[in-house]
Amino acid sequence: MKKNIKVNAAILIIGNEILSGRTQDTNTSTLATWLNTIGVKVNEVRVIPDNQEIIIDTLNVLRKQNNYVFTTGGIGPTHDDITAESVSKAFGLKYEIHKEAFKILESYYKPGEFNKGRQKMIWMPENAELILNPTSGAPGFNVENVFCLPGVPSIMKSMLGSLKNKIVGGEPILSHTISLRTVESEIADSLSSVQNDNKDVEIGSYPFFHAGKLGVSIVLRSEEQSKIDNCKLEILKFINEKKIEIVDR
Amino acid sequence: MKKNIKVNAAILIIGNEILSGRTQDTNTSTLATWLNTIGVKVNEVRVIPDNQEIIIDTLNVLRKQNNYVFTTGGIGPTHDDITAESVSKAFGLKYEIHKEAFKILESYYKPGEFNKGRQKMIWMPENAELILNPTSGAPGFNVENVFCLPGVPSIMKSMLGSLKNKIVGGEPILSHTISLRTVESEIADSLSSVQNDNKDVEIGSYPFFHAGKLGVSIVLRSEEQSKIDNCKLEILKFINEKKIEIVDR
Repeated sequence: MKKNIKVNAAILIIGNEILSGRTQDTNTSTLATWLNTIGVKVNEVRVIPDNQEIIIDTLNVLRKQNNYVFTTGGIGPTHDDITAESVSKAFGLKYEIHKEAFKILESYYKPGEFNKGRQKMIWMPENAELILNPTSGAPGFNVENVFCLPGVPSIMKSMLGSLKNKIVGGEPILSHTISLRTVESEIADSLSSVQNDNKDVEIGSYPFFHAGKLGVSIVLRSEEQSKIDNCKLEILKFINEKKIEIVDR
Repeated sequence: MKKNIKVNAAILIIGNEILSGRTQDTNTSTLATWLNTIGVKVNEVRVIPDNQEIIIDTLNVLRKQNNYVFTTGGIGPTHDDITAESVSKAFGLKYEIHKEAFKILESYYKPGEFNKGRQKMIWMPENAELILNPTSGAPGFNVENVFCLPGVPSIMKSMLGSLKNKIVGGEPILSHTISLRTVESEIADSLSSVQNDNKDVEIGSYPFFHAGKLGVSIVLRSEEQSKIDNCKLEILKFINEKKIEIVDR
């Protein structure tokens, strides 16, 4: 019975390339979607630069306010990859060679390929637990409730599988979407009164423009299917009264 | 001489749909890229839920730490749009009907269409300055160093042009908008060759939907008026050849 246990997380995206606009972050939506399926709600996301002091300060705020913190970025082989050292300092831990990570990378690379740059990736906070990387060898790591993942989206995504047993979530967060051929202002009042009747359900309203036509997606989110169902019935009632068309999206 | 003045900003993305993973944020990279071009550096991005207390607290931190704060999301007509009221509270200002916004929307909508839902969008912090919306009418607003924009990426992007004079960064960038009764695919090639001839001018193309019809606003940006004028002449030439109607917006 996990009912009504609320488990939350923060996502900390580390990287100048996101702040400059050069790179479009996609890790947030990948992580958030995955966390939802295991009953962890994302409370907050922050994007910060590759700056040790800022990483330490931000991490020390977020790890106390949330059940879990997931970082992405800054665990590669170059000079600007400073996440592991920063996490060590945030926790007051030694930053040292991780023996298991050393073994993994030593056998991953061909003889002679495990150069100095790559060896940077085995430096971690002392006693960190590894997060295995099925894509490119170099593992992520976790210390207490902080999980450090790489920034490259495909690699990051491939590592989530090995995290599943380490994250204890609550009830999975269920959602249902109703897409309509209408505009928000036509349904705002009715939707507002449905929200008042169903305070436990998170009701979101999102306009869309698709195939030359305007529409609105109403998204219902709750941990209880019955609450979503009740809410849906009320919405279908006013949709029917207003003769609004439901569309497939 | 504005050179070497460091101007920074934070971006505050407001919306449950980003935190749930349902919607991929793209406003960060759009805003960051644009801010860079005007000499404003993004220090930090935060994504937070549609929660009044959290919006107020976060805004009050960010607006003191940065020269500028840009928010996206939560300024539409539905119950979950609470940014304007939250900003009012963060600044200790009245939340009231904005007369200029009222006039804009009253003339934007057909008689009888300016319903209660849409009227929510004219409620703003007292004395807010408007940020004009060339795509869908409803303006954003700014109070002191805080600029509030909509969450829909295409609309948000189309409003950046009217912000240029309010943000002091590097060299000021001039802009000119030409609105056309066409679709982007009709003018894409011609516009592309105009862009090739005018590499110094930033040419933006933004589809809009107004009074039941599709259109495209072409926005020209440069630090030099003469370059914009040259570019405009080339555009008027192909518009004339293609017999595309220019519309007042």
